[in-house]
Amino acid sequence: VPQVEADLVLPVAVGDYTDFYASIHHATNVGRMMRPDNPLLPNYRWVPIGYHGRASSLVVSETPVVRPHGQVKPESAEVPEHRASQRLDYELELGAYIGVGNAPGVPIDASDAHRHLFGLCLVNDWSARDIQAWEYQPLGPFLSKSFATSLSPWVVTAQALEPFRRAPEPRLEGAPAPLAYLDAGYERERGAFDVELEVWLTSAQMRAAHQPPVCVTRSHARHLYWTLGQLITHHASNGCNLRPGDLLASGTVSGPDPASRGCLLERTWRGTEPLVLPGGEQRRFLEDGDEVVIRGRAVRAGRTTIGFGECRARIAPARDGA
Amino acid sequence: VPQVEADLVLPVAVGDYTDFYASIHHATNVGRMMRPDNPLLPNYRWVPIGYHGRASSLVVSETPVVRPHGQVKPESAEVPEHRASQRLDYELELGAYIGVGNAPGVPIDASDAHRHLFGLCLVNDWSARDIQAWEYQPLGPFLSKSFATSLSPWVVTAQALEPFRRAPEPRLEGAPAPLAYLDAGYERERGAFDVELEVWLTSAQMRAAHQPPVCVTRSHARHLYWTLGQLITHHASNGCNLRPGDLLASGTVSGPDPASRGCLLERTWRGTEPLVLPGGEQRRFLEDGDEVVIRGRAVRAGRTTIGFGECRARIAPARDGA
Repeated sequence: VPQVEADLVLPVAVGDYTDFYASIHHATNVGRMMRPDNPLLPNYRWVPIGYHGRASSLVVSETPVVRPHGQVKPESAEVPEHRASQRLDYELELGAYIGVGNAPGVPIDASDAHRHLFGLCLVNDWSARDIQAWEYQPLGPFLSKSFATSLSPWVVTAQALEPFRRAPEPRLEGAPAPLAYLDAGYERERGAFDVELEVWLTSAQMRAAHQPPVCVTRSHARHLYWTLGQLITHHASNGCNLRPGDLLASGTVSGPDPASRGCLLERTWRGTEPLVLPGGEQRRFLEDGDEVVIRGRAVRAGRTTIGFGECRARIAPARDGA
Repeated sequence: VPQVEADLVLPVAVGDYTDFYASIHHATNVGRMMRPDNPLLPNYRWVPIGYHGRASSLVVSETPVVRPHGQVKPESAEVPEHRASQRLDYELELGAYIGVGNAPGVPIDASDAHRHLFGLCLVNDWSARDIQAWEYQPLGPFLSKSFATSLSPWVVTAQALEPFRRAPEPRLEGAPAPLAYLDAGYERERGAFDVELEVWLTSAQMRAAHQPPVCVTRSHARHLYWTLGQLITHHASNGCNLRPGDLLASGTVSGPDPASRGCLLERTWRGTEPLVLPGGEQRRFLEDGDEVVIRGRAVRAGRTTIGFGECRARIAPARDGA
């Protein structure tokens, strides 16, 4: 079948989907918006933060994403209302599929964690920021995420990525060493990946004017504070069983500079610094008809680049009166 | 097969497991421990609070629950450590299995929600309170819950429970009416259930002394602030697709009086008011060898009582050096 004629589908039946928060730059930026004097919570540099996501609403690239309804309460409003989200966002993430799982009650040693990684993919963890802000205390994000999570149709195997493994970035001054259960020579030396990650955007107006997509985020997997192996080990450290095909996503992969911020919440600083698109449109958050494309590639001098394909989706208008 | 010889297994292959927080008494008690002056968060009476749980670690009644390891940081400690939980708790919950699901993007009207309920079960959402306290900000509970969640092996069908439907308890003074998308005559008139719920405990010492189990929680499904139908409608309100066999749990079913508090965190007020067991042992949180049994029954004058069976499990010691 020629690639252009193939119908791409989800490559894996995901049992459980877990979303982490592994970019310290992302956590710091989001924290700074809410707590300017104390952006990073005390647990961040010790414990990999994550939460369970929704498996049923994982969809393959090119599936339209319908703008969700939800409860929102603007600060100026007395009471919340139920309406279509006005703060729809993308989140650039790296996904990791589990190959061999672990039995219930049996943790995964950090030195073995890389052997449980089957392969990587691209993830767009769409987020409705206005719904999230109202619902997330005290149990975390829920309906602000579970309307859709888009996955690239290709799995780049861990084996193929062996030549692109690298040491994680050195931690910033004052950062503690990982606790022993999260520490392993393999992860220290080879736990990270040389994978470039990008987000491209077109609006309906841009497409009508035959304008090319514009790159709105240019990031890199090396910006993750925790390696994928550490996330696997942490996840199983309480005895939780990971099953083949389970998906662990990194959380938004933001880097230290503004162009590397992996979502519009950060890129536009909660809408206060809109992006200006070619043609003059402004974007605080996503509009109907916007198409978001995530791309990734493993790159190393002297090695053949490996493309990750793409994770693409267009925002469809909200249902009437939902 | 005689019942005593049958091996009971999970009745349903659960795709996604969602845990709510639908008892206002539970939310208020837990909130009061952390924020004495402002126990209930502003969103509670408007939006049903819930989070995605872990499906892989759902286990059937009688499966031993191994005390989990995890990161904990006592307030007095400078840095966290990774060790066996010292604050293991039960949570008494009512579970709801989805029958007919909804297509992605298509919400479930509140007046139809009850038609999506296949049946009920008993849930023990085991919680490691020390792990939870350190990990849960800002994305909610994660490894503090995902080591095991116990389910009763029986499903009591919604059809069988029709005679036990009832109006929810009147809301307390000042509580707002539900937003329109959560409101329906059916739920107002018949959304709650006359189901009594109990938790029974034995310690290893009690069993050795042939002492009978002691009832540590006596509660009732009428104490839920949101009906199961409202939880179903809310869950699908963003277009999230519920699939047949998905499990929605109520959250801890606590009532207004101390004996009806559905977990030890509340029963012992975070360990400050230990329970005294027959034989003189004290319990702040669960000890190795403790066995917890949840029972439920639908009761109404003039109707034959329907038992829910039981959800039973014993705490096994933590793994060495995990």
